[in-house]
Amino acid sequence: MSVIGFIGLGNMGGHMARNLLKNGKKLIVYDVNKTVTEQFRAEGCEVAQHPADIAAASKEIITVLPSSPHVKQVYTNDNGLLKTIQPGTLCMDSSTIDQIVSLEVAQLAQKKKAEYIDAPISGGVTGAQNATLTFMVGAGNDRTFERAKAILDLMGKNIVNLGAVGNGQAAKICNNMLLGIQMIAVSEAMNLGINMGLDAKALAGIINTSSGRCWSSDTYNPVPGVIEGIPSGKGYAGGFGTSLMAKDLSLAQNASTNTQAPTPLGSLAHQIYRILARDPHYQAKDFGVVYQFLKKSNF
Amino acid sequence: MSVIGFIGLGNMGGHMARNLLKNGKKLIVYDVNKTVTEQFRAEGCEVAQHPADIAAASKEIITVLPSSPHVKQVYTNDNGLLKTIQPGTLCMDSSTIDQIVSLEVAQLAQKKKAEYIDAPISGGVTGAQNATLTFMVGAGNDRTFERAKAILDLMGKNIVNLGAVGNGQAAKICNNMLLGIQMIAVSEAMNLGINMGLDAKALAGIINTSSGRCWSSDTYNPVPGVIEGIPSGKGYAGGFGTSLMAKDLSLAQNASTNTQAPTPLGSLAHQIYRILARDPHYQAKDFGVVYQFLKKSNF
Amino acid sequence: MSVIGFIGLGNMGGHMARNLLKNGKKLIVYDVNKTVTEQFRAEGCEVAQHPADIAAASKEIITVLPSSPHVKQVYTNDNGLLKTIQPGTLCMDSSTIDQIVSLEVAQLAQKKKAEYIDAPISGGVTGAQNATLTFMVGAGNDRTFERAKAILDLMGKNIVNLGAVGNGQAAKICNNMLLGIQMIAVSEAMNLGINMGLDAKALAGIINTSSGRCWSSDTYNPVPGVIEGIPSGKGYAGGFGTSLMAKDLSLAQNASTNTQAPTPLGSLAHQIYRILARDPHYQAKDFGVVYQFLKKSNF
Amino acid sequence: MSVIGFIGLGNMGGHMARNLLKNGKKLIVYDVNKTVTEQFRAEGCEVAQHPADIAAASKEIITVLPSSPHVKQVYTNDNGLLKTIQPGTLCMDSSTIDQIVSLEVAQLAQKKKAEYIDAPISGGVTGAQNATLTFMVGAGNDRTFERAKAILDLMGKNIVNLGAVGNGQAAKICNNMLLGIQMIAVSEAMNLGINMGLDAKALAGIINTSSGRCWSSDTYNPVPGVIEGIPSGKGYAGGFGTSLMAKDLSLAQNASTNTQAPTPLGSLAHQIYRILARDPHYQAKDFGVVYQFLKKSNF
Repeated sequence: MSVIGFIGLGNMGGHMARNLLKNGKKLIVYDVNKTVTEQFRAEGCEVAQHPADIAAASKEIITVLPSSPHVKQVYTNDNGLLKTIQPGTLCMDSSTIDQIVSLEVAQLAQKKKAEYIDAPISGGVTGAQNATLTFMVGAGNDRTFERAKAILDLMGKNIVNLGAVGNGQAAKICNNMLLGIQMIAVSEAMNLGINMGLDAKALAGIINTSSGRCWSSDTYNPVPGVIEGIPSGKGYAGGFGTSLMAKDLSLAQNASTNTQAPTPLGSLAHQIYRILARDPHYQAKDFGVVYQFLKKSNF
Repeated sequence: MSVIGFIGLGNMGGHMARNLLKNGKKLIVYDVNKTVTEQFRAEGCEVAQHPADIAAASKEIITVLPSSPHVKQVYTNDNGLLKTIQPGTLCMDSSTIDQIVSLEVAQLAQKKKAEYIDAPISGGVTGAQNATLTFMVGAGNDRTFERAKAILDLMGKNIVNLGAVGNGQAAKICNNMLLGIQMIAVSEAMNLGINMGLDAKALAGIINTSSGRCWSSDTYNPVPGVIEGIPSGKGYAGGFGTSLMAKDLSLAQNASTNTQAPTPLGSLAHQIYRILARDPHYQAKDFGVVYQFLKKSNF
Repeated sequence: MSVIGFIGLGNMGGHMARNLLKNGKKLIVYDVNKTVTEQFRAEGCEVAQHPADIAAASKEIITVLPSSPHVKQVYTNDNGLLKTIQPGTLCMDSSTIDQIVSLEVAQLAQKKKAEYIDAPISGGVTGAQNATLTFMVGAGNDRTFERAKAILDLMGKNIVNLGAVGNGQAAKICNNMLLGIQMIAVSEAMNLGINMGLDAKALAGIINTSSGRCWSSDTYNPVPGVIEGIPSGKGYAGGFGTSLMAKDLSLAQNASTNTQAPTPLGSLAHQIYRILARDPHYQAKDFGVVYQFLKKSNF
Repeated sequence: MSVIGFIGLGNMGGHMARNLLKNGKKLIVYDVNKTVTEQFRAEGCEVAQHPADIAAASKEIITVLPSSPHVKQVYTNDNGLLKTIQPGTLCMDSSTIDQIVSLEVAQLAQKKKAEYIDAPISGGVTGAQNATLTFMVGAGNDRTFERAKAILDLMGKNIVNLGAVGNGQAAKICNNMLLGIQMIAVSEAMNLGINMGLDAKALAGIINTSSGRCWSSDTYNPVPGVIEGIPSGKGYAGGFGTSLMAKDLSLAQNASTNTQAPTPLGSLAHQIYRILARDPHYQAKDFGVVYQFLKKSNF
C-alpha cells in the first residue's frame, strides 16, 4: 500500500491526518513541532526529518500550513519537497495562501512532472475533527480532481471542483472577505439597534427573516445570548481568531491589488481586524469580538 | 361602517390602499398627486382636500410617505392631521423615517389623546401588491398592537410586535443598513473572484453554501446571469433604487450620531450609494448596480 | 453706554467676555453654571435670570454655546431671547453648530426685526484668552458685518467677512473636517514610517518640506517628542478633545447629508473619533491621541 | 574619466540623465524604448544592449524604473546587473518601490561586494528638468552617502541622508500616502463648502490660514480657478496621474501589511484612486481630478 505524505499537523492538519489514519492509510509526516510529530510516531506514522524525505517516500502529499512563505519554503528550501519530488506525484495544498503563490508553486511542480492542486478548506476545527470539511479545489483537470477527491473524501464531505489551479484560493479568499465584512456589519447593526432601544433577539429575528440575513447573523451572531453554543456566548473563546481573519483579509487585499479590483469595504474591514489583532483585549478572541469593540459600555 | 384615512398613494401606498378596498373597507384618501387621487375617487373613495379633513372624518389613519419632513408636515402643518384629530384615533405610519421624528410625532398625537404607532414595511412593490408585506410595529402596548394588526393584516402577512413606539423604525433602519453594506460586499467579492479567474455561478455557489452567504448573494445577486428574474438580469431596472438606499443609510447615520454608536462600514456604504445616487448612470437603477460601478470593463 | 449681552461663559466664552470687560464694556451675562455667573457678578457684570432678561436689556448679544440644541433653546424657549428681543438687536452666535440651525434662528430673529450673524471661532483657549481668535463671519451684508466687527475686534485679531448668514458655520465645519482627517492621516503615516524603521523627527522633517506637509504635521505633530510644547508631548492633556472633534465631524456629516455631497474620508474619520470618544483611555485627551490608538506597542 | 550607468530614461529619468550630461558626465544608458536610446546615442551616450553591459562598463549606476518587478528584473535577470557587477560598484535606485524589494536587492548586491542605496525622488517632472529634485537617501553609512551625493547633487538640490538602506522608500511612501489622503480630503471639504454656499477662493483662504492648511490646499488646490498654473486649472492635464497615485498607495498598503501598522484612511484612499485609475474619464488625469469625481454637477 502506498504511503501518504502529510506536512503541517496543527489545529486543522492534525485532525485531518488522523482521519486518514482512521481510514487505514499509512502516513509519513513532518512538522516543525517535534512534540506533535512524536505523538504521530506513537500512532504508527513514519516521521520525516525534512520535507524532502516525504517527497522521496510518497507520491501523494498534503500540506496544511499557516501562510504563503511557509508553503514556498516547504517546497523550495534546500531540503524542500521539490528537491526529491517524483514524476507523477500529486501535491494537495490545503493552506489558505496568496493565489499567486499557489500558481508559482504549481509551475515549479509541473517542471518536475508533478501535479499541484490548491484545496483550501472551510468548516473549522470541528469540521476537521468530524471529516465534514468543504474542500475548494483548483485541480486544473477532472482526472487530477478525481485522483485528489479519493483522498480528500476521507477528510471532508464536500469536495468542490472549481476548475483551474488557483481557483480554490480565489473562492476561499472571496468568501472569507465577505464573511469578515458581514461580521462587522452585523455587529454595527446589532449595536445600533440595541442603542435605539431594541431587544437583541427581536432585532436578530427581524434581520434573519429579512433582506439583511446572513450567516454572521443567523448562525454566528456576535451578540452574547442571541444564539447558544457559539463563541459569542463563551467570552469569544475558541472559534476563528481576529488575527486569522486579519490574515485572510490581507490575502484579499493582495489579490485586489494584483487584479486592480476595488474593494473599499474589504480594505476597511482589513484595517479594523488589524487594529483588533494588535490589541491584547481582542487578539486571542473569536472574530465576533468586533461587536465588543464597537459596543458602548464595554470600556 | 367606519372609514379609514389613507395618506400617500405612491408606489407602495397605492397598492396597500387598494388591498383595503378589496377587503371591503371604505377609504378617505389624500395625496399631493391629483391624478392619483382622481383614480381613487373613481374607485369609490372619498378624496380629502387636506390631511386635516382626513383626521376629521376617520379614527384610523395610515400614512406612507417618503421622508421625515413629509411626515412631520402632514401632522403639524396648518391643515395637518393634528389640527382636527379626534381622541382615540389610531395613527399608523408606514413610512421609513428617523426614529426621533416618530417619537416626536407620537408625543404630539398623545397630547391630543390619539395613538401613534410606527409600522415601516419590507417586501417591496410586489409585497405591497400581493398583501405579503412585513410590518415592523412599534405600538407601545399589546392592545394598540392588536387594534392595528386587524387592519395591517389586510395588507401584509407578517405583522411583528416590536414593543415601544419607535422600535419599528429601529428594526427597519438596522436591517437596511446591513442590506446596503452586504450588497456592496457581495459586489466586491464577486468582482474580485471573477477577476481572479472564477466563474460567477461557481463562486456564488461556494458563497451560498458557506459562511459568506446572505440574501444579497443567494436571492438578489448583483452579477447578471447568476440568478434569473431579478433586476441584475434586466439592466438593474426596477427593484430598490440607489437613492432610496442612500436615504435609508442616511437614517442609519442619523441614528448612529444620536446614539453615538460607531458604524464604520455603514458610513462608508452610505457614501458609496451617495456617489451612485448623484451619477446619471446609476441613480435610477436598482442598488445592485454598485457591482457595475466596481467592475473593471464597465467604463 | 450700551450694555452687551453675553450667554455661555465656558472655556471659550469666559475669556471672551473678560476681554470685553478689559476694553471697558458693560455686560449682562447668563450661564447655567451659577458659580461662574457669581464670579462675573463679582467682576461687575449684571447677571440675568433667563436669556429673555438679556434680550430685554441689550441690543448686542453674543452666544457661545456647545451645540445646536443649546442655541435653539436659548433663542426659542419660553424664557428665550426671542421672547423679548428688541427691533434692531444684533445677535452674534460664536457657537459651532449646524448651518441649518443658524439659518433657522436667523429667520426667527428677522421676524422680530433683529439681525443674526453666525461667527464661529478658531484659535482655541489661548486665542480666546489673548484676544487673538479668528472669527468666521456670515453677516449677510457689509453694514451688519461692520457693526459686529467693532465688537468682535475686542476678542479676536482676524475677523473674516464670508458673506451670507450660515457661511461662517460652513467654513468652520469644512476646515475642521479637513483637520480631523489630517490628524488621523499624519498618525497613520508617522506610525507606518516608524514601523518601517524611520526616526520620527527625520520623517516629520521630510514630510514638512514635501507635498505631505500640513498643520497636523508641522505644528501639532501627534508623535511625542517631535514638537515641544504641544499636547502630544504632555500625555495629550489639554488641547482639543476627541469628543469635540467627533462633534464637529458630526456637523460635517449632517451638512453632507443635507447637501448630498459625498465625504468618504470625512465619514470614516467621524467614526474613528466616535470610537475614541467612547473609550475611557482616549475620551478626555487631545485629538492627536489617535496616534496612540493606531500605534503598535500601546496596548 | 569614469562612465556612469543609467537605466530608465522615462519622464523623470530622461531629464535626470541629461542633467548629468550637462555637467560633463559620460554615460552608458539602457531603456526598453529604442527610440529614446537612439536619441541619447545622438547626444553622445553609449547605448547598452542589456543591463549586464552597463554593470560591466560602469561602477556608478543609476536606475529610475516604474515598479518593484522592474527593479528586480533589471538586477536579477539573465542579462541583469548582478551578472557582471564589479566589486565596489555603487548602485543608486531612484525608483519608488516596495521597501522589502530595496532590501532584497541591497543584499544581493552586497554578496557581490557592491553597494546599493535607495534614493527615491520628489519634485516632479519640473524638478527633474531643472535639477531641483529632492532625493530621500537610505545609504547605510555616511561614506556611501557622500559618494552618492556627489552625483545626485548634479540632478537635485536637496539630498537627504535618512540612514539605513530602505529608509528612502519608507519616507517617500509615507509622504505620498499622506498626500493621497489629503488631496481627497481637500476635495471633500472644498466640495462640501461650495455646496453649503461658500465661494471656493474664500473657503481656500480660510483653510490656508487655519488648522486645515496643507500642500494640497495652498499649493495644488484641486478646484479649478483657486490657484493658477496648476493641473486643476488645465483640465487636470499633466501633473501626477491617478494611476501613479494608486500605485504609490499600493506600496503603502504593502508596507502596512508587512509591519501590521493600521492605515484605515490610507486604505480607503487607495481604493478611491483605484476606482479612478480604472475609469477612462479619470485615469489619464492629475490626481486632483478626484474633486470632479466627488463634485455634484460633473456627471
